[in-house]
Amino acid sequence: MIAKTPEPPYYAVIFTSLRTETDKDYNDTAERMVELAKDQPGFLGVESARSEVGITVSYWESLDAIRNWKGHAKHRIAQERGKTEWYSAYKTRICKVERDYGKDENL
Amino acid sequence: MIAKTPEPPYYAVIFTSLRTETDKDYNDTAERMVELAKDQPGFLGVESARSEVGITVSYWESLDAIRNWKGHAKHRIAQERGKTEWYSAYKTRICKVERDYGKDENL
Repeated sequence: MIAKTPEPPYYAVIFTSLRTETDKDYNDTAERMVELAKDQPGFLGVESARSEVGITVSYWESLDAIRNWKGHAKHRIAQERGKTEWYSAYKTRICKVERDYGKDENL
Repeated sequence: MIAKTPEPPYYAVIFTSLRTETDKDYNDTAERMVELAKDQPGFLGVESARSEVGITVSYWESLDAIRNWKGHAKHRIAQERGKTEWYSAYKTRICKVERDYGKDENL
């Protein structure tokens, strides 16, 4: 779903990836990492889609919150397996969201 | 594919959307808008995926480049049809990319 984020500024991590053909533990780990991210201080929301590439955008209150999540022990293990097993290529971009606008289906 | 972007800082527009059931002209327009975006000054790249939500991230040299693209006549017509016909909800987030890193399949 579309993440319900507060008024900017806040931060976004755009993770774009190409998968290998190795599926072992991938879906389970991806799901567990989303659940774990939601428990972290400063987490604001996450959006994810996959076609030719996968794009996952997570939203955070601060750069510190992003740094802490990157260093989380279980996340580090998943990152290492991602790098060696699940992703043939990826790019992580750390961004400051300066402005946002949109249309809400509930309005 | 994963966009090949220069060293930060640069800018990103994260467009997250939920589709209506109206397909009329949608795919054609989406493709034409990507082609048109590529011709704009300051365009750096684009990544797109759709599952439950669609996520399109376009990358730009400056906020001015983003503003110009938002105001482009053909793009404005497409934005208006998006709002009224193709998207039940969407959120556009304007971001400054401060840092990036990754793994390149060609390395």
